[in-house]
Amino acid sequence: MNTFGKNFRVTTFGESHGVALGAVIDGCPAGLEISVEEIQAELNRRKPGQSAMATPRVEKDQVEVLSGVFEGKTIGTPIACIVRNQNQASKDYDFLKETFRPGHADEGWFYKYEHRDHRGGGRSSGRETLARVIGGAFAKKILKNTNDTKIIAHVSALAGVKSCDILHENFDVSEIEKNPVRCGDKIAAEKMIEAVMKAKKNSESVGGEITICIKNCAKYLGSPVFGKIEGEIARGIMSCGAVRSFEYGIGTDAKNQVGSVQNTRKEGISGGLTTGDDIIIKVSVKPTPSISQKQTAKTPNGEISDFVIGGRHDPTIPPRLVPVLESMIAMTLVDFLLEPADRMNQIFR
Amino acid sequence: MNTFGKNFRVTTFGESHGVALGAVIDGCPAGLEISVEEIQAELNRRKPGQSAMATPRVEKDQVEVLSGVFEGKTIGTPIACIVRNQNQASKDYDFLKETFRPGHADEGWFYKYEHRDHRGGGRSSGRETLARVIGGAFAKKILKNTNDTKIIAHVSALAGVKSCDILHENFDVSEIEKNPVRCGDKIAAEKMIEAVMKAKKNSESVGGEITICIKNCAKYLGSPVFGKIEGEIARGIMSCGAVRSFEYGIGTDAKNQVGSVQNTRKEGISGGLTTGDDIIIKVSVKPTPSISQKQTAKTPNGEISDFVIGGRHDPTIPPRLVPVLESMIAMTLVDFLLEPADRMNQIFR
Amino acid sequence: MNTFGKNFRVTTFGESHGVALGAVIDGCPAGLEISVEEIQAELNRRKPGQSAMATPRVEKDQVEVLSGVFEGKTIGTPIACIVRNQNQASKDYDFLKETFRPGHADEGWFYKYEHRDHRGGGRSSGRETLARVIGGAFAKKILKNTNDTKIIAHVSALAGVKSCDILHENFDVSEIEKNPVRCGDKIAAEKMIEAVMKAKKNSESVGGEITICIKNCAKYLGSPVFGKIEGEIARGIMSCGAVRSFEYGIGTDAKNQVGSVQNTRKEGISGGLTTGDDIIIKVSVKPTPSISQKQTAKTPNGEISDFVIGGRHDPTIPPRLVPVLESMIAMTLVDFLLEPADRMNQIFR
Amino acid sequence: MNTFGKNFRVTTFGESHGVALGAVIDGCPAGLEISVEEIQAELNRRKPGQSAMATPRVEKDQVEVLSGVFEGKTIGTPIACIVRNQNQASKDYDFLKETFRPGHADEGWFYKYEHRDHRGGGRSSGRETLARVIGGAFAKKILKNTNDTKIIAHVSALAGVKSCDILHENFDVSEIEKNPVRCGDKIAAEKMIEAVMKAKKNSESVGGEITICIKNCAKYLGSPVFGKIEGEIARGIMSCGAVRSFEYGIGTDAKNQVGSVQNTRKEGISGGLTTGDDIIIKVSVKPTPSISQKQTAKTPNGEISDFVIGGRHDPTIPPRLVPVLESMIAMTLVDFLLEPADRMNQIFR
Repeated sequence: MNTFGKNFRVTTFGESHGVALGAVIDGCPAGLEISVEEIQAELNRRKPGQSAMATPRVEKDQVEVLSGVFEGKTIGTPIACIVRNQNQASKDYDFLKETFRPGHADEGWFYKYEHRDHRGGGRSSGRETLARVIGGAFAKKILKNTNDTKIIAHVSALAGVKSCDILHENFDVSEIEKNPVRCGDKIAAEKMIEAVMKAKKNSESVGGEITICIKNCAKYLGSPVFGKIEGEIARGIMSCGAVRSFEYGIGTDAKNQVGSVQNTRKEGISGGLTTGDDIIIKVSVKPTPSISQKQTAKTPNGEISDFVIGGRHDPTIPPRLVPVLESMIAMTLVDFLLEPADRMNQIFR
Repeated sequence: MNTFGKNFRVTTFGESHGVALGAVIDGCPAGLEISVEEIQAELNRRKPGQSAMATPRVEKDQVEVLSGVFEGKTIGTPIACIVRNQNQASKDYDFLKETFRPGHADEGWFYKYEHRDHRGGGRSSGRETLARVIGGAFAKKILKNTNDTKIIAHVSALAGVKSCDILHENFDVSEIEKNPVRCGDKIAAEKMIEAVMKAKKNSESVGGEITICIKNCAKYLGSPVFGKIEGEIARGIMSCGAVRSFEYGIGTDAKNQVGSVQNTRKEGISGGLTTGDDIIIKVSVKPTPSISQKQTAKTPNGEISDFVIGGRHDPTIPPRLVPVLESMIAMTLVDFLLEPADRMNQIFR
Repeated sequence: MNTFGKNFRVTTFGESHGVALGAVIDGCPAGLEISVEEIQAELNRRKPGQSAMATPRVEKDQVEVLSGVFEGKTIGTPIACIVRNQNQASKDYDFLKETFRPGHADEGWFYKYEHRDHRGGGRSSGRETLARVIGGAFAKKILKNTNDTKIIAHVSALAGVKSCDILHENFDVSEIEKNPVRCGDKIAAEKMIEAVMKAKKNSESVGGEITICIKNCAKYLGSPVFGKIEGEIARGIMSCGAVRSFEYGIGTDAKNQVGSVQNTRKEGISGGLTTGDDIIIKVSVKPTPSISQKQTAKTPNGEISDFVIGGRHDPTIPPRLVPVLESMIAMTLVDFLLEPADRMNQIFR
Repeated sequence: MNTFGKNFRVTTFGESHGVALGAVIDGCPAGLEISVEEIQAELNRRKPGQSAMATPRVEKDQVEVLSGVFEGKTIGTPIACIVRNQNQASKDYDFLKETFRPGHADEGWFYKYEHRDHRGGGRSSGRETLARVIGGAFAKKILKNTNDTKIIAHVSALAGVKSCDILHENFDVSEIEKNPVRCGDKIAAEKMIEAVMKAKKNSESVGGEITICIKNCAKYLGSPVFGKIEGEIARGIMSCGAVRSFEYGIGTDAKNQVGSVQNTRKEGISGGLTTGDDIIIKVSVKPTPSISQKQTAKTPNGEISDFVIGGRHDPTIPPRLVPVLESMIAMTLVDFLLEPADRMNQIFR
């Protein structure tokens, strides 16, 4: 299943070391003004090689728009965008033909499909998420042009270091893109960088947490009972490889809460529909599975042997995941913004 | 969106105080042996009035199978099941025409649809979940008859009381249905009951946590990249009204984890596919919004006034949510068990 | 696949001799005024036992609305309607356990599902179409209340007798419901009745043709390139059992046409979208397979033997198919009336 | 809606004078052997400039595979293929900004989307169908490798000239690709060519008919009640621009047939499921709307004026439509070949 969404449908394709990756966006309304530069700017936020926090693999990740946009505007037809792989270095991965990397998707994909592209994970690579960011670029522009909805995501914990709360006065949106860990708390960011560098030096990788605040969300998005907006957002976010938890509103504290207090909270979602209030989401992310320590690994023969991973990898995932999660949320919201009319008075044209 | 699933499609209908609720199951394979008693047994686990932990509303919740089953077996046609409402006591809710209950879906549904069934929440009532349990009964039977997959769910925290870990030696599956809080830790269960009774006496409601262990799961269920099994399970679980968080495997601890340790964990899911190992899921549940304390409430006119809720309500949600979450997971797994063939050699008949 | 439509989704269920048949309509806008009587009136047009043109099986086909309608209006939740079977006479069909009736679906269904309800065709019976008429009743009301769209269908050929053209001055809409063959040409109707009665006397059944004119259709319904409106209408109509051809506009004469003439035709559909002009559709219907002549039939053992069919049957299908085809077209049009917004200015609320 | 299929999902994109057209195929089983040459061979059958029967627009229509195929086999991930436009000659179409071409989709698309690519029809151009042929190439290979299913299509009528019946001894499959009208009846083919050349000389275009025979079809494909195979095939075929009718089996003659004869026919489909017998389908195709005669045309202002079309066009559509219809049928059959398991014994792995 490589299509996300029912109304705003983003179909992605491409393996990490194949010819190209890309996305086809179907259902995007006609008349949306968007430039290649806007799409590229989002891709640049995700692309590798930006800092010591990220893999040194060099990819320009340059997008080409093949269809669906004419004279600077969408025309209601499917929008196809591709990014060609450049720095494929496939030989780095030749040894993987015979080994399932620990913590990676290799084993399951091998047995499910029997024939796979083993180079760098193929389609199970995190590189797949660049196509999500293409879809997100269009979705964000629609959100901006309708309700001026903003999706603010930052790294709220990394390598054991926590940032301030996203609603705290120390949180500064403009800080997020200034530091390589994408944390909106300047002081915490410095500590995070230090902690990641230390882990990297020890051939270790680290986990983290991303907190997201959705502001100015359109009201009543969601489709009861199985299309509750929180379920749809969760699905998109949990479909990003390394994510292990999803919370919104009171989150895991719900278990200790009492009704009289909970009833006074504004969580931005009620009865599966957005209310227009801010929505706060928290997401936990596991450490990068690729580490340069010696590990043991299984082979297709069922043998277990020592294993040292090659390739070039990120010491931690959350900083590069920030634009991906924003994209998943943006696509989900637009999908519901475009849902079939709910009320009779909406179907008259 | 009242249909859950793509291959095993469960469409539910019905309002809490309407004529009947029910489900139509489309895509259930022919030849499945199932009796009305098996479906009823699942419904009985969810039905109200079972103990002081639950609302005193009396409903027999008796299921009638209208189609799709012939001579004790499914025949490949859609299976329709209905449950008629008996104890509707609609007058209890007349006063709600003019008030949005705090913590309920009332306000959003009113503005989204403009015309609604205000009686007891109508379709936004937790009573809607009985139809999910009908779908779950069929899904569980399929799981049992294929891989003998078991979905074990219990209340692992309630009113601030925690149970032992689901993998701990003190955990006892057979205990779950013996106590009214559905906790697999006998000692914790007693404390939970005490805590809930105390809250109830204080006109308060309490939150909790449900932990689920999936055993003997078929391998390689899931459909990368957007149909990762964890995302699909999360979506189903988050579509249950009061849920505020979803975790699997290492869960929220992922943010503090390092790669060398994480790579050695078996979480039952890898690369979006099940591995056959146990899957542990944790879900936080907010307190019941209906409490008998005086609260303030909004009206369609935007006024805010004092408000005391009538009707009959549960002091806490998790015990009755246990069979519902089991059902959501069962339906999700079956949906992927029935997914189209992945390999060429699977498409020969 | 027992769900029709993407936005206005009608899921049907029920076997011809089971407990009940019915439909669940999901996606119907809130606020639509509709009464049980309006739904019943449509069902009465399709029900058996109306004349010598139809099977003498007596069924009241009385509809019960279980959900989704409150105080005379839809509320945006799924609408469930059921019709209980009364005159099941299942014993008439006992002999079918061991025989595949000629011209019926029996053989394929037996091998596909291995376990089936053999009574009167089970779900492959034409009786299944009553659930389509329920969906059609809601769709027609939406069409009426938005664009006052009318779907006029009549039997334009039967037993070799042709009616006048649907645009001819002799065609009279008010005539259709007055004669048992549902033909809008009074003189042709009489000849049709005579021809059918003669065939019936000879233990024979006859084929026919239905012509449909869609008037006042909303403009620009359809979704290029795979959701062209003509393809979607064709799909719905061809999903009715006995149909063998579908034509619109110039139809089968297209093969003899030249461009300079064709370019001047108004066919009501252009580029896959409705234009607002009248759409003329023609549908050919095969004779009823159940006839009381001696025939040969196959058994599950592969034997072929003489066979005389029991049960009660229609000598011809088109008159009772008229409301069914109207319903399929109405549901298709509403599905596109509710499609996600195409233009940016439609997504602002 | 630019995706075809539920299980074997082909998403197409691209405008006739944009950067590129292409298709993303999702759900193709892993392990299918296929070469670029096989895909190109199918595209070459459809490409323009092959004879005097077709537009002189020169396009190499060279396909590039971007993903999903590795070392000559599919790997279960989405397959993206693109074809870049070369001979765009967009200036030929500049004058169309202000005119709706008679018989084309221009007017509806303009009003539906408000902003369109007017160059050569943009996405409403017949050039869009090349992406369908890409999907068809994969589908045909799956059909070949499973049941050796063959889809034989030829032009059975053109410009008023009829070929022999597809089951007649004069019909010769090997003849189809030898003559530019793709007719399997050599003598008729010569007359057709003559008739088309004559029409072309008169600045006229002509309609025709395509007959298709499906041989060795897998049994029991189809999904009652709304996914009957005949409805799904009809939908795909009617989604090709110039098609005006669809028939199978006895087709339009059904209206004159009697039951005792019809019951003895083998039509390859029964009860919505394939039976394994040959399926004969007939499709009528209107004449090309682009002709070089003077015509009248509407403008966005509602004015009507004289109009002479520029550009380069086909005098008739059916010869180039043959591979497209084959593709639509192949994709439909594969979609059902991959459908979720129907019987319990199919879900055990």
